[in-house]
Amino acid sequence: MFRKRHPPAGSKPGTLMIHAAAERPRIHVMKYRPDHLEEHDVDTIEAVRDLLADDHVCWIDVQGHGDEALLRAFAEFFSIHPLALEDVVNVPQRPKVERYDEHTLCITRMFQSESGSVEPEQVSVFIGDRYVLTFQERSGDVFDPVRERIRQGGPIMRSSGPSYLAYALLDAVIDGYYPLLEAFGERVERLEDQIVSEPQPAILHDIHTTKRDMLTIRRAVWPQREAISALIRDEDPLISAQVRVYLRDCYDHCVQIMDGLETYRELAGGLMDVYLSCVGNRQNEVMKILTIMASIFIPLTFLAGIYGMNFEYMPELHTRWAYPVLLAAMAVMAVGMVFYFHRKGWIGGADRDDPEARP
Amino acid sequence: MFRKRHPPAGSKPGTLMIHAAAERPRIHVMKYRPDHLEEHDVDTIEAVRDLLADDHVCWIDVQGHGDEALLRAFAEFFSIHPLALEDVVNVPQRPKVERYDEHTLCITRMFQSESGSVEPEQVSVFIGDRYVLTFQERSGDVFDPVRERIRQGGPIMRSSGPSYLAYALLDAVIDGYYPLLEAFGERVERLEDQIVSEPQPAILHDIHTTKRDMLTIRRAVWPQREAISALIRDEDPLISAQVRVYLRDCYDHCVQIMDGLETYRELAGGLMDVYLSCVGNRQNEVMKILTIMASIFIPLTFLAGIYGMNFEYMPELHTRWAYPVLLAAMAVMAVGMVFYFHRKGWIGGADRDDPEARP
Amino acid sequence: MFRKRHPPAGSKPGTLMIHAAAERPRIHVMKYRPDHLEEHDVDTIEAVRDLLADDHVCWIDVQGHGDEALLRAFAEFFSIHPLALEDVVNVPQRPKVERYDEHTLCITRMFQSESGSVEPEQVSVFIGDRYVLTFQERSGDVFDPVRERIRQGGPIMRSSGPSYLAYALLDAVIDGYYPLLEAFGERVERLEDQIVSEPQPAILHDIHTTKRDMLTIRRAVWPQREAISALIRDEDPLISAQVRVYLRDCYDHCVQIMDGLETYRELAGGLMDVYLSCVGNRQNEVMKILTIMASIFIPLTFLAGIYGMNFEYMPELHTRWAYPVLLAAMAVMAVGMVFYFHRKGWIGGADRDDPEARP
Amino acid sequence: MFRKRHPPAGSKPGTLMIHAAAERPRIHVMKYRPDHLEEHDVDTIEAVRDLLADDHVCWIDVQGHGDEALLRAFAEFFSIHPLALEDVVNVPQRPKVERYDEHTLCITRMFQSESGSVEPEQVSVFIGDRYVLTFQERSGDVFDPVRERIRQGGPIMRSSGPSYLAYALLDAVIDGYYPLLEAFGERVERLEDQIVSEPQPAILHDIHTTKRDMLTIRRAVWPQREAISALIRDEDPLISAQVRVYLRDCYDHCVQIMDGLETYRELAGGLMDVYLSCVGNRQNEVMKILTIMASIFIPLTFLAGIYGMNFEYMPELHTRWAYPVLLAAMAVMAVGMVFYFHRKGWIGGADRDDPEARP
Amino acid sequence: MFRKRHPPAGSKPGTLMIHAAAERPRIHVMKYRPDHLEEHDVDTIEAVRDLLADDHVCWIDVQGHGDEALLRAFAEFFSIHPLALEDVVNVPQRPKVERYDEHTLCITRMFQSESGSVEPEQVSVFIGDRYVLTFQERSGDVFDPVRERIRQGGPIMRSSGPSYLAYALLDAVIDGYYPLLEAFGERVERLEDQIVSEPQPAILHDIHTTKRDMLTIRRAVWPQREAISALIRDEDPLISAQVRVYLRDCYDHCVQIMDGLETYRELAGGLMDVYLSCVGNRQNEVMKILTIMASIFIPLTFLAGIYGMNFEYMPELHTRWAYPVLLAAMAVMAVGMVFYFHRKGWIGGADRDDPEARP
Repeated sequence: MFRKRHPPAGSKPGTLMIHAAAERPRIHVMKYRPDHLEEHDVDTIEAVRDLLADDHVCWIDVQGHGDEALLRAFAEFFSIHPLALEDVVNVPQRPKVERYDEHTLCITRMFQSESGSVEPEQVSVFIGDRYVLTFQERSGDVFDPVRERIRQGGPIMRSSGPSYLAYALLDAVIDGYYPLLEAFGERVERLEDQIVSEPQPAILHDIHTTKRDMLTIRRAVWPQREAISALIRDEDPLISAQVRVYLRDCYDHCVQIMDGLETYRELAGGLMDVYLSCVGNRQNEVMKILTIMASIFIPLTFLAGIYGMNFEYMPELHTRWAYPVLLAAMAVMAVGMVFYFHRKGWIGGADRDDPEARP
Repeated sequence: MFRKRHPPAGSKPGTLMIHAAAERPRIHVMKYRPDHLEEHDVDTIEAVRDLLADDHVCWIDVQGHGDEALLRAFAEFFSIHPLALEDVVNVPQRPKVERYDEHTLCITRMFQSESGSVEPEQVSVFIGDRYVLTFQERSGDVFDPVRERIRQGGPIMRSSGPSYLAYALLDAVIDGYYPLLEAFGERVERLEDQIVSEPQPAILHDIHTTKRDMLTIRRAVWPQREAISALIRDEDPLISAQVRVYLRDCYDHCVQIMDGLETYRELAGGLMDVYLSCVGNRQNEVMKILTIMASIFIPLTFLAGIYGMNFEYMPELHTRWAYPVLLAAMAVMAVGMVFYFHRKGWIGGADRDDPEARP
Repeated sequence: MFRKRHPPAGSKPGTLMIHAAAERPRIHVMKYRPDHLEEHDVDTIEAVRDLLADDHVCWIDVQGHGDEALLRAFAEFFSIHPLALEDVVNVPQRPKVERYDEHTLCITRMFQSESGSVEPEQVSVFIGDRYVLTFQERSGDVFDPVRERIRQGGPIMRSSGPSYLAYALLDAVIDGYYPLLEAFGERVERLEDQIVSEPQPAILHDIHTTKRDMLTIRRAVWPQREAISALIRDEDPLISAQVRVYLRDCYDHCVQIMDGLETYRELAGGLMDVYLSCVGNRQNEVMKILTIMASIFIPLTFLAGIYGMNFEYMPELHTRWAYPVLLAAMAVMAVGMVFYFHRKGWIGGADRDDPEARP
Repeated sequence: MFRKRHPPAGSKPGTLMIHAAAERPRIHVMKYRPDHLEEHDVDTIEAVRDLLADDHVCWIDVQGHGDEALLRAFAEFFSIHPLALEDVVNVPQRPKVERYDEHTLCITRMFQSESGSVEPEQVSVFIGDRYVLTFQERSGDVFDPVRERIRQGGPIMRSSGPSYLAYALLDAVIDGYYPLLEAFGERVERLEDQIVSEPQPAILHDIHTTKRDMLTIRRAVWPQREAISALIRDEDPLISAQVRVYLRDCYDHCVQIMDGLETYRELAGGLMDVYLSCVGNRQNEVMKILTIMASIFIPLTFLAGIYGMNFEYMPELHTRWAYPVLLAAMAVMAVGMVFYFHRKGWIGGADRDDPEARP
Repeated sequence: MFRKRHPPAGSKPGTLMIHAAAERPRIHVMKYRPDHLEEHDVDTIEAVRDLLADDHVCWIDVQGHGDEALLRAFAEFFSIHPLALEDVVNVPQRPKVERYDEHTLCITRMFQSESGSVEPEQVSVFIGDRYVLTFQERSGDVFDPVRERIRQGGPIMRSSGPSYLAYALLDAVIDGYYPLLEAFGERVERLEDQIVSEPQPAILHDIHTTKRDMLTIRRAVWPQREAISALIRDEDPLISAQVRVYLRDCYDHCVQIMDGLETYRELAGGLMDVYLSCVGNRQNEVMKILTIMASIFIPLTFLAGIYGMNFEYMPELHTRWAYPVLLAAMAVMAVGMVFYFHRKGWIGGADRDDPEARP
């Protein structure tokens, strides 16, 4: 859950820890202005430099961290501070916004909804004056609708500069939280139903897992919210006033997701109590059966034991009606006990004690 | 509980998600000044435009979202920002206040008291310089008393401009929370009584449901309070100073409702403990009955077993008084046990251990 | 606990909800300056107007809300805002301070100590430049010592203007919380003693009630504290600098009462745990008795059962010493079990397991 | 725990409530400058006036409140505000700092470490331009080391004016909290050990008492911290810049004590859980013994019962090997059960289930 | 856990409490500029003075506190305030930053990762204009990589002045928290596995210890974070703007560690619930076995008891088929009970009730 690939303590700041299994970077560049669009798959920094030469907006999307030399070449070309590069590569970092001289770095955490997994992937977005540079841990992302919107050439998309593009990417990341939130809602409701219908121990484990997963998401959304708030509030010249309005919308979404998560967390916490009480209830039922059986038969067995004794002088043994009378007395006792337990609501009390029998 | 009808991740901001079952909009316009009132049911934006032509105050009330073309026409005519329109349609949004160039948008959540349901309905209020434009999800609302006050032509109502009308609508929405709050009070008190009189498992489920419903309301009231506070605090030229005093009253109501909710939540939380303890108590009672029965009869049965043995040389068996003496000894043992349990307060201790027997 | 007499949702702001059983207002006016004092019982607004005509300080005390016409007459004469009048009448309101043009309204909640009840009564204090106007829900209050001080003509009291009088009233209200707080302290201590000496289920209900009552007081004191803080902080010309020092003292009392309440709440919360654990302990004791009885006698009964069998070829049955040997063996087994349970601390372990036996 | 000696509600501010058992004041004056020191025991205000006549620094220490006339004489001579005098006498007050025209009042709560008691004593320190005036509830305090340092004539002590002396007193009071904190640390550790070695019910009461005592200290330290922070922050001309540095150190001590208290509180809270779980565990053990005994012997007793029946036609009874075969079968059953329970870890599982057997 | 070596209450501020077992100070000086490096082991303040004479950057590292005279000599030479020296020696202090005239003191708490221990060691860093002076409690630290970087002569390291060196040391300390955090992550995961596979009481103790250890770390990291934030925020001329960027990175690490700790704390808290529920579950299982055994055999034993009675007139005893019929009836009853318990899911319900059997 928390496995920062951090360098050894005391190492030089800016040391990159590239995982052995990291994917080789795949670089996709979209270069557009209102009336024109080019897309390129490139693999050297020189190719990127050439594409940036004129006044288009460029989105350079780097998927995979597995090539330190290339990353350092990017860092040099885009004047990325060594600490910023470290934040990009040594994942996971807390979502945050940092202002550098030539660009603003916005780190965010993306959850891919199609798999339903809660494994986050870090997306680092550099917003420059004429480019947006994104680094992703792996290939595969939630940005296809954004690419589609660029290709379709919507006027706002094509003409609003890099900060609008960055907003669109952030918005896509945050929209990706909604399916997760809905999945949590369904999990909580399903657990609620199960607890009432059949409270099995496995449910407890499910509740625990659900709460843990929510915790993971919550830790991602909370700083995300702060980061977007900082983008709106700070007087960053790279973010246009128009985009600030859109970011406010994005901020509202974050708050809404937090709200939803908090609600589900409180509900999940309450479920634990309900479960424990249902278990206590079942235990009570077990105890009642034991007590009923024992209370009915132990006295009867004692009576039978009395007349199983071998004393010479037991006049009852020789009376003709003693046996049927005793049997009758035993039956009366048993019925009396049953009646007593019935009146206490222990027998036939399903309609009063059983939660499932409730309308 | 949380079903945002949100567009697919990454879609263009301003995308509207209109539910298939959404009602067709019904538009009602009230147009008034101190000495004059007109009411119209219209269905085109052109009709609205005509009504807005002179210097009356207009309340355009749109109930139902089921016509995207009409909504977009409204948005265009009233210069509604695409994101604002999205907030109106893609319900539920968090209650909030947003300032736009030509109007202020105030999103609020209404609970209808007659049905006693806690299903909220979003009301979006645009406050302009000469109009108030409201969007509701469904027909049916809590605004009839406001309409009545306009018709009766009270001097403050008719002459205080759109911001007073907006205040009156907000106030009506918030007043609608009181019946809910009282219903919670009654639910909590009834639960309290039931727990003391007959602590059944079903109560736990009721406590859980009550807490969940309170959570829903609380999530609606909390941002509502912030939103009204923002309306009072911000220097919005569309809100007159006179109305600000009234909004302060409205704010007080919100705080009072929050207070009441918090009180009931703490009480409901405490009920869980009382319930669990009552259950534990019942379990204890079951255990006591079992222990009393077993402790009295198991030793007696053992004694009977002794004299049921078939040893040849058991002198007691042949003594005349052995049988009655043994029976007497058994009776003494049984009475001794009963006395012991009585002294421990397990038998006849109802007056000491039974919560129901308390005055 | 929470029964606001609020008007129907959507009614005109300023609508008064006067309870059918509300007392008819009784108006008492004290009119004083350093060298002179008059007291009058009046019943019309004209009489009040005449008394206010010269330069004395006037305290107009209205006890009871049961006359809407009179209240509206007061409101008109003293220029009370309709919303302020609504706050006075539609009790309970949260304690608060509101500044109007001609006076400052201070709403507070009074608990009468003689009855020991936690039923609050709202006192609304209007502080004007030459008068203090108070509205109480019912006759009977905690202000007699203040009246006495006015009559005795103490120099500070008589010469410090209306704001000092208002302070004296507020201080009397807050001093009235101390007896309540002490009563809580005694309740918590008594509960603590009872739990240790005899943990009965009824105690749980007492803890719950105590916590609920504390909650009620707390909800009253908390905003009271904020209100007094606002009086001190805000630059209200009606409050003299000298009185601000006294209000600071009043504020300290509020904080001290909050502190005390919080302490008792935490203690009461802890009591719940101690109680539950004592109950668990008792249950454990019951279980031990059952287990001891069963573990000792069930094996012995089995042995007796063995020799009660009717097999033809059971050589032991015909041995002369078999019976006493078996009895001896049984005694040894029983003693062995008793010794085993003693070593486990289950028997005679009162000195180790019994909380009451502790020094 | 909370017994404020407060005056009756509504009494005049400044009313003193002197406890009948209050000690008669003993007044000790230390008068010093760098090269000179005098000590006097005085008992009238005139004597104090004479000692204050020249330019020495004077520490007037009043121990005991039992003489209202003398206290009022002090108040008059030192221009003490009636409310300040009330704070000095009507103990306990919350620790606080208040600025008056001629002096600063600093109220603090002292715990005497030698007795290990958590009964606080209020110390009120007035810091004037040439004097420090302290009021204590009783004789006996933690200030002897400070007196010793004055007598030894350390240069900083003797030449740094009244504010340094006041700092030294505050520091002595706060240093007095460390032994208490250590005592708590030891109590928590001892409880932890006891719970693991022998979890008896009495421990729960100890945990509760420990938590209550911590609460008492905490309520004293928390406002103390705020008070010192106010002394450092406010621009009080009576506190020299040099002393502010020392007060910062004093503030750090307060924070450290709060930290320690919080840590112990969380640990003590966790102990409750551990204890309850240990108790639950013991209960489980009792249940297992009962179940083992019952499960082994009840079926065997049944078998013995079968062959104790008196049917005429029971062929087994007449078979020669029936009896030993039955005994063998019973032995096999018993061993089988034992093996079954052993495999479940109920028998001989001490090495797995017993917390004490853990390294 | 909390053993401050504080001086007796009331002693002079600046009193040093040197532990008897404190190590004798070992002083290591690294003196460098971009093109030059010297290292010296010295043992007098005079040697230090000579090394500081020119314009190199000097790192004087003092390991061990066991020589008061030497420490006081250092304090005098470096103009260390007596209170600052007290903070250095009387460990542990809360991490903090304090600005003095000639240097800034930064107190931090180091955990050494190799031992995996959570015993902290205090490191006090004085940042001067040309030197960094560090005091450690013991020899052995996490600074070897920093020394290595100085020796290797990296350009930033050698040319960025004392504040960069101080940053490098702080960063090394904070990087040392990551291994601890990972160890906690592993402990929590292992506990989670154990609870599901075999919920033994010892686990509870492990959870408690884990939580306590986390608490210790948390109390160290929290003020650390504040201290670094103060270093960044305050306009301290000794910290260069370039280093502020690096400190921001360091601050991010602190926040990330706090985040991780909070996550693990919440998880560990949840584990307690899961454990308690597993235990309750096992108890339930024990109860079920007891109830099954008793419910099956007690009625059968009663039946056997009936026919073991010695009445003269019991016709069944003389019927030929009575015995086999009774045995058959008993078998039917037993099977019936087994079937009943099976349907209730008590027998063979492992696949439904056993958490381990879950996929």
